[in-house]
Amino acid sequence: MSQPESPTATQPVIILTRPQMGDNIGAAARAMLNFGLTEMRIVDPRDGWPNPRAVAMASGAAGQVLDRARVYPTLAEAMEGVTYAFATTARGREMTKPVFTPATASAHGRAEIEQGGRVAFIFGPERAGLENDDIARANAILTVPVNPDFPSLNLGQAVLLLGYEWTQNRLPPQPMPTARRPAGEVAADRIEIEKLADHYEAKLDEAGYFFPPEKAPPMKLNLRNLWSRMALTRADVQVLHGMLRQLTRR
Amino acid sequence: MSQPESPTATQPVIILTRPQMGDNIGAAARAMLNFGLTEMRIVDPRDGWPNPRAVAMASGAAGQVLDRARVYPTLAEAMEGVTYAFATTARGREMTKPVFTPATASAHGRAEIEQGGRVAFIFGPERAGLENDDIARANAILTVPVNPDFPSLNLGQAVLLLGYEWTQNRLPPQPMPTARRPAGEVAADRIEIEKLADHYEAKLDEAGYFFPPEKAPPMKLNLRNLWSRMALTRADVQVLHGMLRQLTRR
Repeated sequence: MSQPESPTATQPVIILTRPQMGDNIGAAARAMLNFGLTEMRIVDPRDGWPNPRAVAMASGAAGQVLDRARVYPTLAEAMEGVTYAFATTARGREMTKPVFTPATASAHGRAEIEQGGRVAFIFGPERAGLENDDIARANAILTVPVNPDFPSLNLGQAVLLLGYEWTQNRLPPQPMPTARRPAGEVAADRIEIEKLADHYEAKLDEAGYFFPPEKAPPMKLNLRNLWSRMALTRADVQVLHGMLRQLTRR
Repeated sequence: MSQPESPTATQPVIILTRPQMGDNIGAAARAMLNFGLTEMRIVDPRDGWPNPRAVAMASGAAGQVLDRARVYPTLAEAMEGVTYAFATTARGREMTKPVFTPATASAHGRAEIEQGGRVAFIFGPERAGLENDDIARANAILTVPVNPDFPSLNLGQAVLLLGYEWTQNRLPPQPMPTARRPAGEVAADRIEIEKLADHYEAKLDEAGYFFPPEKAPPMKLNLRNLWSRMALTRADVQVLHGMLRQLTRR
């Protein structure tokens, strides 16, 4: 059924149905390749095929996506080998099909592929979008949740968002980033932070900073807290020592 | 600090830094409005402002985003009122800052806003991207995970993906990965951080700290990055000013 021998069989197929502008076909190819998708199928392109405008827009590596694209006279034929297809349309609510966002469609599509299936995302012509007859061939609807007062996404943007979601979902869940340090740099340890705090406290004391005397303890505590919160590297600590030495040089 | 009275105070600010092509500014405005974002700030646009190409590209409702956009001579000034800023760059790994994806940055940004902060996403010029000097003013890095063999996202696409993630609102707000501010304290805004950095830079310059002269630029950049990483409160900034004044009193 599907093409398990193909290197792209684990990827979704992107089907552009009756696309009008070569520029948009090229932009879709770029958007696909941005997220590592390479299998494009094109149904009955208005300006024929190959399309020089598409090639110009997809300059560089994305040209390979166009070179490998297959062209079909009808959507039905373009769905060769596909086991589950999402039709991209803003009119999901009228349809008796499940409606997915890019995120849920990607998760669902991946599950389909894991079961040996082949997944397609179908995009319509720029101006009018997919017709009911096209949508009838899909298992489900894909709708990008956009601002209802300004819902205009072009073809390249719709493909981009789908490609983005597809790829994000494939990545393992990412840990929340913590403060990063440059390669080779090391977090300051607590003793270094203590010594830094001591150094500042001593010099500020000499300079008469902790005044009036009854406020000195909370002021010192506040400073200690400040150094501790800073996620300093060992190099940062040296910089802060150096600044202070220079500032207090007689 | 922030502008709690503004209807857009719960939205991130989108800052375009030295954008080159009017078309791209217009495309960014469209991408913002697709996801309901309306506050654009523009730093030193190459072709001046207003830009007829931007207006033509942002036809329709997106023109209002451009009408309301504010233009600033420098990134520092454009960060007025901002308490937490993400710099969009593919060069995250070289930096000593936390690196976020659009998804984690959105979750983090929402948490910052819930604490009363004001969030900005900074995008660079089309060709060269943000410079180190720009990135030094941000608290963290935003990197879109793309195919390393074809990583070319244009300005409009980068804004689109960020806007999409911001709106999807899928992840629960996550705790600050580095420093948390004490409860009830207010984040310093970027202008306060700029002035703090300027104050230290000036006094350290007087003290002969930036030596030898050819090392002064990287030393200054390093210090700017240090202040940006510190998650300082408004009170912290006052403490740091006070320390410096006292240390440099003759």
